[in-house]
Order: sequence, then C-alpha cells, then structure tokens
Amino acid sequence: MINKNTLPTNFLGCESSFEDSDIVIFGAPYDGTTTFRPGTRFAPAAMRTDSLGLETYSPYFDADISDYKIHDYGDLDLPFGSPTKALKMISETSKLIFEKGKKPLMIGGEHLVSLPSIEQAVKLYPELRIIHFDAHTDLREEYIGEPLSHSTVIRRAWDILGDNRIYQFGIRSGTREEFYWAKDGHTNLCLHNFDTLAAAVSQIGAAPVYLTIDLDVLDPSIFSGTGTPEAGGVTFLQLINALQAVSSLNIIGADVVELSPHYDHSGASTAVACKVLREVILTMQNL
Amino acid sequence: MINKNTLPTNFLGCESSFEDSDIVIFGAPYDGTTTFRPGTRFAPAAMRTDSLGLETYSPYFDADISDYKIHDYGDLDLPFGSPTKALKMISETSKLIFEKGKKPLMIGGEHLVSLPSIEQAVKLYPELRIIHFDAHTDLREEYIGEPLSHSTVIRRAWDILGDNRIYQFGIRSGTREEFYWAKDGHTNLCLHNFDTLAAAVSQIGAAPVYLTIDLDVLDPSIFSGTGTPEAGGVTFLQLINALQAVSSLNIIGADVVELSPHYDHSGASTAVACKVLREVILTMQNL
Amino acid sequence: MINKNTLPTNFLGCESSFEDSDIVIFGAPYDGTTTFRPGTRFAPAAMRTDSLGLETYSPYFDADISDYKIHDYGDLDLPFGSPTKALKMISETSKLIFEKGKKPLMIGGEHLVSLPSIEQAVKLYPELRIIHFDAHTDLREEYIGEPLSHSTVIRRAWDILGDNRIYQFGIRSGTREEFYWAKDGHTNLCLHNFDTLAAAVSQIGAAPVYLTIDLDVLDPSIFSGTGTPEAGGVTFLQLINALQAVSSLNIIGADVVELSPHYDHSGASTAVACKVLREVILTMQNL
Amino acid sequence: MINKNTLPTNFLGCESSFEDSDIVIFGAPYDGTTTFRPGTRFAPAAMRTDSLGLETYSPYFDADISDYKIHDYGDLDLPFGSPTKALKMISETSKLIFEKGKKPLMIGGEHLVSLPSIEQAVKLYPELRIIHFDAHTDLREEYIGEPLSHSTVIRRAWDILGDNRIYQFGIRSGTREEFYWAKDGHTNLCLHNFDTLAAAVSQIGAAPVYLTIDLDVLDPSIFSGTGTPEAGGVTFLQLINALQAVSSLNIIGADVVELSPHYDHSGASTAVACKVLREVILTMQNL
Amino acid sequence: MINKNTLPTNFLGCESSFEDSDIVIFGAPYDGTTTFRPGTRFAPAAMRTDSLGLETYSPYFDADISDYKIHDYGDLDLPFGSPTKALKMISETSKLIFEKGKKPLMIGGEHLVSLPSIEQAVKLYPELRIIHFDAHTDLREEYIGEPLSHSTVIRRAWDILGDNRIYQFGIRSGTREEFYWAKDGHTNLCLHNFDTLAAAVSQIGAAPVYLTIDLDVLDPSIFSGTGTPEAGGVTFLQLINALQAVSSLNIIGADVVELSPHYDHSGASTAVACKVLREVILTMQNL
Amino acid sequence: MINKNTLPTNFLGCESSFEDSDIVIFGAPYDGTTTFRPGTRFAPAAMRTDSLGLETYSPYFDADISDYKIHDYGDLDLPFGSPTKALKMISETSKLIFEKGKKPLMIGGEHLVSLPSIEQAVKLYPELRIIHFDAHTDLREEYIGEPLSHSTVIRRAWDILGDNRIYQFGIRSGTREEFYWAKDGHTNLCLHNFDTLAAAVSQIGAAPVYLTIDLDVLDPSIFSGTGTPEAGGVTFLQLINALQAVSSLNIIGADVVELSPHYDHSGASTAVACKVLREVILTMQNL
Repeated sequence: MINKNTLPTNFLGCESSFEDSDIVIFGAPYDGTTTFRPGTRFAPAAMRTDSLGLETYSPYFDADISDYKIHDYGDLDLPFGSPTKALKMISETSKLIFEKGKKPLMIGGEHLVSLPSIEQAVKLYPELRIIHFDAHTDLREEYIGEPLSHSTVIRRAWDILGDNRIYQFGIRSGTREEFYWAKDGHTNLCLHNFDTLAAAVSQIGAAPVYLTIDLDVLDPSIFSGTGTPEAGGVTFLQLINALQAVSSLNIIGADVVELSPHYDHSGASTAVACKVLREVILTMQNL
Repeated sequence: MINKNTLPTNFLGCESSFEDSDIVIFGAPYDGTTTFRPGTRFAPAAMRTDSLGLETYSPYFDADISDYKIHDYGDLDLPFGSPTKALKMISETSKLIFEKGKKPLMIGGEHLVSLPSIEQAVKLYPELRIIHFDAHTDLREEYIGEPLSHSTVIRRAWDILGDNRIYQFGIRSGTREEFYWAKDGHTNLCLHNFDTLAAAVSQIGAAPVYLTIDLDVLDPSIFSGTGTPEAGGVTFLQLINALQAVSSLNIIGADVVELSPHYDHSGASTAVACKVLREVILTMQNL
Repeated sequence: MINKNTLPTNFLGCESSFEDSDIVIFGAPYDGTTTFRPGTRFAPAAMRTDSLGLETYSPYFDADISDYKIHDYGDLDLPFGSPTKALKMISETSKLIFEKGKKPLMIGGEHLVSLPSIEQAVKLYPELRIIHFDAHTDLREEYIGEPLSHSTVIRRAWDILGDNRIYQFGIRSGTREEFYWAKDGHTNLCLHNFDTLAAAVSQIGAAPVYLTIDLDVLDPSIFSGTGTPEAGGVTFLQLINALQAVSSLNIIGADVVELSPHYDHSGASTAVACKVLREVILTMQNL
Repeated sequence: MINKNTLPTNFLGCESSFEDSDIVIFGAPYDGTTTFRPGTRFAPAAMRTDSLGLETYSPYFDADISDYKIHDYGDLDLPFGSPTKALKMISETSKLIFEKGKKPLMIGGEHLVSLPSIEQAVKLYPELRIIHFDAHTDLREEYIGEPLSHSTVIRRAWDILGDNRIYQFGIRSGTREEFYWAKDGHTNLCLHNFDTLAAAVSQIGAAPVYLTIDLDVLDPSIFSGTGTPEAGGVTFLQLINALQAVSSLNIIGADVVELSPHYDHSGASTAVACKVLREVILTMQNL
Repeated sequence: MINKNTLPTNFLGCESSFEDSDIVIFGAPYDGTTTFRPGTRFAPAAMRTDSLGLETYSPYFDADISDYKIHDYGDLDLPFGSPTKALKMISETSKLIFEKGKKPLMIGGEHLVSLPSIEQAVKLYPELRIIHFDAHTDLREEYIGEPLSHSTVIRRAWDILGDNRIYQFGIRSGTREEFYWAKDGHTNLCLHNFDTLAAAVSQIGAAPVYLTIDLDVLDPSIFSGTGTPEAGGVTFLQLINALQAVSSLNIIGADVVELSPHYDHSGASTAVACKVLREVILTMQNL
Repeated sequence: MINKNTLPTNFLGCESSFEDSDIVIFGAPYDGTTTFRPGTRFAPAAMRTDSLGLETYSPYFDADISDYKIHDYGDLDLPFGSPTKALKMISETSKLIFEKGKKPLMIGGEHLVSLPSIEQAVKLYPELRIIHFDAHTDLREEYIGEPLSHSTVIRRAWDILGDNRIYQFGIRSGTREEFYWAKDGHTNLCLHNFDTLAAAVSQIGAAPVYLTIDLDVLDPSIFSGTGTPEAGGVTFLQLINALQAVSSLNIIGADVVELSPHYDHSGASTAVACKVLREVILTMQNL
C-alpha cells in the first residue's frame, strides 16, 4: 500500500475523540469588529497546517503532548456581519465543553471571542480569575459606540467578575483613562512584562483560572503577524517562563488569539503561535 | 516661502467645494460581510494616496478631469460589526448627494455598499436601470443565512427593480442556480465579456442609469488585489471601451468597489483602480 | 448542534469513495530535480485549501463537478532526495487507479511526476497519444548529466511512444536542438499557442489520450507562481477553449503540474490552478 | 450629519497652529544620496498614515501628547537630483522654526537631511551638543568622492562643532579609520549600546542639545524596514530608556531618520517609527 | 576537478572580448531623478543574475545569441546625488563604444540615462531617428523646475533632433500639453499600441536608428516591476512583433530601461526584461 | 577611463588566490533532502551579492578581514536529485582544501552538506571535536527511512567520532528520543543558549575543532529567512560572544548553513548571515 500524506485536520496530532479528551481545542475564526488590519479569521486553519513543522516534544516542560488526551473539534462556522450570532455560537461550544468536565482551548480570531468563553466559565466556576497576557489594556468602556469589541473585551469580563479578579501582564498600550482605571484597583496591571506574576500566582492559589493570551503580548520582532503590533513586548522565552510560572495554577480554560497570518510573510509568526499553543497545552497539565 | 507637499486629502486633485460640484466622490470603507479575504476597507485611502502617480488627462476620452467640478467628501466613519448601521450611513450620504441634484461616485469597500446607494437612486429615479460590471453574479437569495451580503447585492437590487432592469457584464462565476435564474429573464447577463453592451445601451436609451463596477471584472493578471480573483476576465482596454460605450447614457450615480490594497504587493492593482475611477468620472460627463 | 467548518481534506468537494469514483485525484508533491526555484511540493495542499473559494459550477462547460463521481485520494508521502523511490510510488498509484478502470488526475509537483503515470498508461493503452500543454519543450536528452529531470520528461515519454504520438502546444522556450529535434518529425510542436489543436484532435480521433498540463503554458501575467515563468504564453480563456477542443477525445488520464505557491504572493496563481483543475475534470467527462 | 473619517494630514493628531506650537514637525522626504536601498522618501507620509493605529498616551512617560502644543507643517517638496537645493530648503525651514523660538522635529529621509538643521541650530546655539543614535559611524571624510552623503553627515557636523561636542551611541558599523578617528578624541563613541549615556548626560549638563536618531540604531529584528539593517542593535525598550535618560537635557531640536517603508512588508517598522516619534516628542518636554 | 558554478558576471553568456564584439552591453544603474518609486538602480545586476534561467535560443527569431559577438562591459559606478556627473560617465562610455564602430546596448536605470547615449549617437549619425517604446510621453519641457529628468528625456532628445525624427509607440500617459505638442508635428506619437509602426519603418528606410525601450510600455499585468505601472499597455507578443518589425532597420544603438526589481516580488518582471534584452540583441542583427 | 562596478564574484572582497590563502570559502548550494521549505540552494549567491553592503572591519574583534588571506572558490555545481553525487563533490572539495593545509569555510545549503566536510576533517585530524550551533538536535537515526538527511547529520557525525566529541549549543527542538539520547552521554547538549560554552572550550583545549553553524540557532526575530524557524533562539550579540569564546580554539574548518533567501523578504536575514560569516573568518584567526 502507498503511504498517503493528507492535509492535517487537527493541531499537531491531537486526535483523541471528544469523549476521551481532557482538553478540547476549537477555532473561532471571527474578526468582525477588528478596526485596523483584519485577518485573524485565517489563524486556526493556518496553525493546523503549519503545526506539521513542529515537534510534539517540548524541551521547556520536558513533556510530549502526544502523551495527553486532546481533541481538536475543528472550527466554528461563524457568520460575518453578525457579532451577536457569532458570540452565541462560541458560547454554546464552550458550554458544551465545560459541561462535559473538559477544558476548552480556543484559537482566535480577534480577542472579542474570549468573552463568551469567559461567561460560560464563570457560570461553572464562580470564583474564576482571569490571567491576561496582552500588549493592550482592552479596558475601554465602549469603542466607536459599540460595547462589544476587541478593545473592550477585558472590561466586559470585569463587568462580570468585578475588582481584584483580573491579572494583566505585558500591557503597554491604551488610553490614559484605561491605565488609570486599572490602577484604581479594578485590575492588577503589570506594565510591559511579567514582574508581578509570581505574586499573582501566589495570591490566586487554588482558585480556578481562565488564561487568555493575546499573542501581541510578544514583541513584534518575534510576532509581527498581527493587526496592531506594539514594540516593547516580551520575548518568546519570557512568555515560556510565564507559562511555567502559571502551570501550577488550576487552569480550567484558555485561549490564544490575534494571529493574522496574511501579515506573516515569512511564516515565523504562525510558527511561534503553534509553539505557544503547544506550551499552553502542557501548562494546563499541572506538570 | 518653502513649498509644501502634504498628503493628498482628495482623489487626484478633486477639490471643488460640495456646493459647486456636479459629482461627489465619497469612500465607504466597509468589508464586514466579506467571507474570504477582507481588506477592501483600505481601498479609498490607498486610492487617494496613490492617485498622486496618475495624470489628470485621459488620452482615451481626450479630456482632463481638472476641467470638471468634482468634490471629494472623504470617507464615512463606518462601524465594523454592524452592517445595518453602516448601510444606513451610506444611505444617508447618497440621499444627501442625490437631493442636492448631484451625482454620487462611491469608492468601496465590498460590493454590499452599492445597495443603499441604489435604493436612494430608485427613490429619485423610478425608471432606474443598473449596469453591473463584475466577475460574479451576486444573485444569491441569501448567503450563509444572511440576506445582506456581497454575494446577494444584485439580487437585493432586483427585489427593488424587478425584471429587465439590470444588465450584467463580464460575469464568469456563480452557482448554477444563479446563472439559470438570470437566464430566466430576471437579468440581462453577458458571460465574461461586453459582447451585448451595445445592444443594452441602445435598449436603455434615455433612462437613468446607476453604474456599479466590481473591479474584479478585470482579469486577475491586471487586477490581483482583490478578495476573490477570477481568471478569464476583461482586459483594461476592454473595460475602457465599455466605459466609452456607456458614456452616452444618462448615468446618475456610480461606484467602484472591491479593491483590497493589502493583497496588492506591487501597487499595480491600486494604480489600475485609480485609473478606472478617473475614466468613470469622464464617463459620467456625456463627452 | 454547532456548525463546524473544518479544513478541506479534498479538492472542491470531491468526496466520492475510491470505489464509486470514475476519476481519482491524487497529489504528487515532489520537486527534487527542480534546478531553479523549487516549491511545487506545496501545490496539492495549497490547491485543496484554496479550492474553498471556487464554485463547483463551470459557466464554460455549463456543468457542475458535484454531478460527477470523483475521489480525492490525498497526497503521496514522497521521499525527498530519492527520485527513483518517488517515481516508483507514483507509478504504483497510477497503476492501481488504471487497473480499477478509473482515470487518474494527478496534481504535481514538478513535471517529472508525469513520467510514471504515462508509463502505466501505455501498458494499458498501447495506442496512447499525449497532449502536452507547456511553455517548455522538455525534450532534452539529459540535463546536467541526469536522464530523469523536469527538463527531459517529454523526451522520456517519446522513448516509450516514438514518433507522431506526442502533440505539444504553447511551447516557447528550449534549446535550438530541442526545437529542431521536434521539427524533425519526432513530436508535433505548436509554437506558443493552440493553432494546430483542431487538426490534432481530428488526427487523434478515438485513440486514448493522456493530457499533461504544465501550468506555465499560461502567460506569467496570469500565472506567475511557478519556477520558471516564460512571457508570451496563452491566456486563461485560450486555455479554456483548448480544453473544450480536446473534450471530445478519449482522455484516460491527466495531470496538472508546476504550481509553486510560495512565489504566488497574491494567491491569484493558486486560484487559477484550481480553476484549471475543475475544467480538466469536466474536460474528462466528454460533455 | 454623517461622520467623516478623512485621511490624516498630520502626525497623531498634532494639529496646533504653527503660531501656537512649541514643537514643529516637518517631513524631509529626501533620499538622493542613498547608495544601497533607497525609499526613505516615503517615510513621512507612511508615518502620518500609520499613526492612526497609535495611542496618544505613553505609558513610558505617563504622559499624553495631546496635552502639548505641536504643529505638523507637512512635507517639504524637495527636488530629486539636486542635493544642494534640497538641503537649502531644509535649512530655510529649520531656520524659520528656530527663529520663532520653536523646536524643529524633522522626519527623514536619509540621514543627510540632519545636516542643514544642525547648521541652523549652531547659529542660534553656539554651545550646541549633538546626541547621535545610530548603527553607523557616519564619519567618513567623503563617500565615492562626495563630501555630502548619508555616510559623512556626522563628520560634516564635526567640521562645524569640533571635538568633544558629539556623543554617538549604538554604533556597530563603519570602517576601521572611522572608529579610530572617533577614538582619537574627535567624538564620544559608545559601541553598540548606551552604556556611557548617563555619563554623557551629566557631562552635557545645561548645554543645548540636538538629538538625531537614525532608526537603524534599533536591531533589525524590530526594525528591518531600513536601507542597511545592521544586526546587534538595541531593543525598543533600551531606546525608550535612553530617551528617558536624555529627557532632562535641554533639547532644542531633533530628527528621526532612515525608515524605508517599502521594505517594511509587515508594517511593524513603520509602527515602531511612529512610537519612537511619539516618545521623542515627550522627551523634548523635560517631563 | 570539481565543477564550479560561479556567479554570472555577464548577461546570458555574452563573454566576447570588447575588441571582438559588435554589440557592447553596459549597465547604467542610475535612478537619481526618479520622483515616485525608485530602485531601477538594481536592474542591471538583477538581470545578469536572473539571465541564468533563460535560454540563449529565441524561437521568435529562430536564432541563438551564442552565435553573435557580444561583450558585457559591466556596470558604470555612477555617483548618486549628482546627475551631471552620472550623465557624463554614460556619455563617455557610449562615445567609446560608438567610436570603436560598435553598438552600445545600455541597461537602465531610469529613462534619463538614454539622453547621453542619444547625444553621442547624433554626433556620429547626424541623420539619426529615434524609435521610442514607452507608456509615457516623456515630453515635458521641465519637471519640478528641472530640465533633466526621466519625464523630459524625449523632449531633450527633440531639442537635438527636431521635428519628424522621433517615433513614439505604446504611449498612454502624459499631460494634455504633451500629447497636443506631439500632435502638432513634433513627434510621431502612436497611442497605446504599434498600429503605425509599419508605416514608420517604411518612412525611416535606411536612416540610422536608436531604439529606446522603456519596459513600462508593456502592460503591468506582465510587467509590474516598475516605478509607475500604467494599465492598457502592450502584451509581450505585441512587443516581440514590434521588434521583428524594426529588425530590418539600421539600429546603431539601443537601451532597455525602467525595470525596478524590488517591486518584482515574483521575479516575473525581471524574467521578462531579460527576454526582451535577448530579443533586442537579435533585433540588432538584421536577421 | 570609466569606473566599472561589476557584480561581486567573491564574498566581501576575499580575492586572494587559492595558493596564497589560509582560508578557502566555497558554496555548497544543495537542499535536496529538505523536507519543509526548500531554498537554501540560493544562499551562497545571495550572500556574495549582499556582502556589498557590509564593512570589512569588525568592531567586535577590532579586526579587518581585508588583512587576511582568504580565497573564494565559488560554488560547486551540485546535481539535484542525487544526494550521493552531491556529497561526493563536497567531499572532494574539502579534501583538496585540507590536503593543501588550508581551512575550508563552506556556505550551505542545508545542514547535510556538513557531513562530507567533517568526514574529511577526521581523516586529517583524528582527535577532531565538533562545535555545533543549531536550533535542532539533528540526532535522528534516520528520517523518513533515509539515513542521510538534514535531520540526521550530527548523528552521522557521531557515528564517526563517538561519545564526548560533539558539543551542541542553542538546541531547542527535537524529539524526546533525541534529547534523551544526547543526555545519555553521547553528546554535550546545551539547551537553547551558550551557558556551558566556556566549560567546553576549556575541556577541548588544544584539540582540533570543526565549527558548524546552522544559522537557525539565531532567534527567528533576527533570522526568519530559514526553512524551519524556531522561536526562543539566541540573539546576534550572544552569537558574537560565543564566537569570541571559541576564537582561542584550534578551528581547522567551519561552515555556515541554512539561510533560505527567498523567505527573507526584507533582506535582513541575508545581511545577518553575511555578518556572521565575516565574524567566523575572524574567529578562525586566533586573534
């Protein structure tokens, strides 16, 4: 018989069945509220295709994701031009996964896709904390008159969770109002690095955590394939160290958002996104 | 005094005041229902900037647009994530221009932006005909459940105008249902060229005409900077000849849509779009 | 239940089973003898992914490929660094398809991949003719000392078939020796267009035909995503007309080769390749 | 009334009038002596357009440029093919700004554009010091026989200022002669970082300073969009820290040069240049 | 001994000595007056490197350039920032070649480089005619105050030659004044094709001819790698036919200008330029 | 006489004769076993061309390569499709250089090209050590059934040298088996940096060393132009420091591999590769 080498239909060999799996990956290819450069809709497909070039073994965690039960559910078929419908479909998917006792790991899309997943997480885990890696505050009350936007997503999460439940790292862009509002005790904001992460981990303790990673937390030098690159970000190794630091926490769901593959001419940003996703999977194993 | 060379704030020196002008150019940078490659939102700004490289004189019409009264209104500030609001703003702008006895000349954005302009045109000109240059039929009844989409825009126009009022040229992509529905007498569809254009012009006579040009009617060889390039299109000179053919008609409004500048690495597609817009301005002068 | 939108695992919805199908598509992602710009290895995967943007209906044939039984076998897992092994695997695959009474439709890879398929075709169809669309003669006796190369593939086919069995069209590049050897009656070579195609079709009559299309027969204006673009080629419509001309023949197998997606920055070449493949499928139906 | 969203005609909302302003930004889009990859002529326009994606608030200085009086004068209309004329026009512009008691902030263009601005600065401020951030020494006596070149600009400044008045940082490329000439006490040269910057600031004290930033002082990882990228440069945060270090000085004029937008395919370099310009504005405020 | 495959130091194997040769190729990598997108300075080197991918045999002329005596002199080392010096060096080179009874074949650079070569040609051949293939009139009296510019080059040639000596083809861009000035009998201008070329050839008869080809005469679909692409140009085959038409003339010198390789991402424009140069060499043989 | 500026036929002015030279540079443009993105075949030519933009003086070593005797032999003319023949030709070249008492400095090509050079080195220097900078372990026993591959090259070197002779640095990607096999005492593997380099240098002492640098040891932020970019790599300055650390060793041969210029859209990766090669030349001088 002749060997066949078909297109990958899942991320990096994650082919456990939905029922068997502990983590369920799914794509939320939505970028409908993106105001500047769109295209994060192409991220989940690009990451599955390019994961072929990545090893399953991580020297950082000394662990291999082929040892764990992970299902790749595929991408949601989200309608453009209707954010409400799109968010509803993401919400239902996260609910389904949470209710089966599994952990969702969503691939964005723009950052707004995190909101329905966080909403579902809070229903099951009222004590939820959010750990948020990002270049941007995302704390606007509204954006061009719209309360639902990639620029307001963490503010909307705060509407649900309230003060002292959100920890932000790597932040280096936003309005003065957003930074001052955060400083007023609404969120725990760490400027452009992870200096206060160890303290946060210790403060959070055993509480359930949702981890949301806007990949533009990385410096544009290593991650230029995104809509609004912000210089002054963290290096890949700083991000890996941060993931190792949070790996002791009780992470009940996560997402990785804002890769925009059509602005990644060399393919390096997509390769980085794949590697981060592999490390997030291992971070969720409490190794 | 030192010469200054500021950024162009209008297309190709169109700096008449709104009041004085006969034609009003405006940008509708909306691509919210685009399903494949987005980015037509960047077209109006890119075309103004690159119009610097274009002459005002057309050897095709032996005419110079600097001899005419044209105002560039700028771009509408359209909200992403809400097609209804965006279409309403375009509608109001077209209405304003039509009611002042002027001709709107809109720069898209995706093709859906034509709909509100056509709706306003019909109110003033009940006998309106549409001349439609495109690679795609755009005659779907709905698209992924949505009646408002770049793929349904001409069908929506038919909802208003009915049979025998829409003339389509250059069409070479669509579902079998769309092509058969058109052939059933709903529209006048000319497959992949302009062979029946002279007949159409004679049939239309003195009736008012709205001209809508999806730039992907051009072959991808000369216009690859668009979301869904379709081989087998018309050449630039065929398009110029078609414009000369319709220049005897009573064109009361027009648009040029679907340039996606971020897929135009060489800049050639944006240059073509600028040149088409210049020729459309002259086409509207009944030279 | 939530709609899922997974990665395409076949070309343009060709999902009949192997057993049911009349045509079997397979990918031969090999570019090991390419001397100039490599990368045709990426073509089959890119074409499956981008076929999402293509309609199943062809206005040229007024036919829809969803009405036919076509199986997409996937890609062969060909070893780089060993042309002999790679050709053997392609040979076995073609044999399997031919022996089941089906027609292979291979996606290259470089042009050398046609050779094993032609070899298998001759075994079953000793009266085989080859119709060859290409910019290049591919008639070298050897290339840098190697008899097996993308530059020698049609000469190797001639070794098997002999004089008056090979018809070449669109040819516009080669050494003087190659052109003169062809003119000496070894092949039927038509310089840079399809002028003699009607005569060839009539001459071939009912004989079995293998159709091999090097996509660089197209002009680089519409198909720049290839290793050695040669100006002066045919337009897309000329190619469609040529396919319509040969559609009356008894085509028992075919291939479409030499797309190199990494040199196709706008995506237009990959879109063209998909459209050609759709039309080749319909060409093989004797519509 | 419908919101309009016109092209930005100034950098990041700097719309104070010339008369009211303390800082006057102007573009010097000249690259006529560039020997390797040209294109810095496109930088001022690209930076104004892309400044739309940047916040006015700087978390590094905890300050917002919308609180300051800054005028954007636009670009000079410089003739290509005549460096003498171009430099004269820049000279007159700088003179005009200096004489009104304002601070010029020029956007290059190639580095040679700094020379006329420095010449004017010395006339008003005979005690002038220059702080120079760059990858290259720019200390050649002449370049291919020409005394006026991007490679000689700091040497020409030394012709005016003499020894111990020029402080160079981040330097990592030049001829042996240039490095040795600097070491001979002619300039204060700090190899590839800012290690001696604190000492320089203290030495300079209250003297007037012209700050000239060749953006290629940044590592090509974060700034590849320039004519001659030189590995081993400073990070964005190191540059920010350097700006904070010099912000106590009496900076009377500045420039930011050598962005070449057409080599910045991802847009990340242009975004960095905008951010540096924002921070330079704040650096000039003695916050 | 081991085969070596060094970098090509000449165009397509043109390695006759200067003394033996009939045609002398040289590069004039100057783009100092280019107002829009620079970079033609890179053309000669790019064409030599990429000529590796081209055959020496032309099926159009049924001739092989390896049968002729051609020397590649290399590139002139032209100073940027000083058009006068650059033009002087080109002038001396052309003079040297003409005086030895050979034919210069210059590779630009921008179109201004033709001027010194034409000036030298007229000295030896007072009855000189110019055949000019271009998208642009190049007939401006001056450009931004400068009499020497890529936009004035043919007007400067007219200053020397006077009326009825210049034949322009493919022209489709210019000011109204330029077109009307040409029509006033100053030049023989053929709008956007070669329709009057046969008549021109017959009129010119045995007079000496300098052939200057601005490659942007080609349509941007096949030649987008140039500073100011103008849609509506000729196809490659039309250009080949035009060359065949002029091959009976007494061509005493020629040039091929305005390739800008850095805007040629696919490499197709550079490949076309090489092929045109090969055909020009054969055109100069009176085959 | 007119200055000529011909194409560089050697790297950075290395024009000593073979006989006079101490170091012989040669190119091995082979990428026949590359499984992911090919194109390292273009590296030697690209590096020679772009070395024009680099100074001959290194501020890191305070030395100038124009002071040393270096010959550039050119590129080997390696057959694609036959790794055995290609490796044999490299082997003979290295042998020739070693036997004349000179040091080979090879430019790859893929990493497999190091093997024949190492084999020849061991014949002359039985006590050989290998210092290996890379992102990848390259320790597979075989790859897709092939023992000769870019992924197995260091394992093949171990087959010859045995335990404790190979020192690997910067490694951050491989299978679990490869990492564990290394840890079992077969090689000295330093994870993702140079932390143990000083110890290695001291351990190696006076033994002869072959230095093989896969440029993907650099972080993709500074070196994205390679087939499989791996985030988490070393910075350019860390690599320079590592070279300074090994410059006291007795380096008898070296190579620099895996630049893939066609994925280097900005040119920055090629510039880095040139700079590394310059520093390796100085590293081999025991300064």
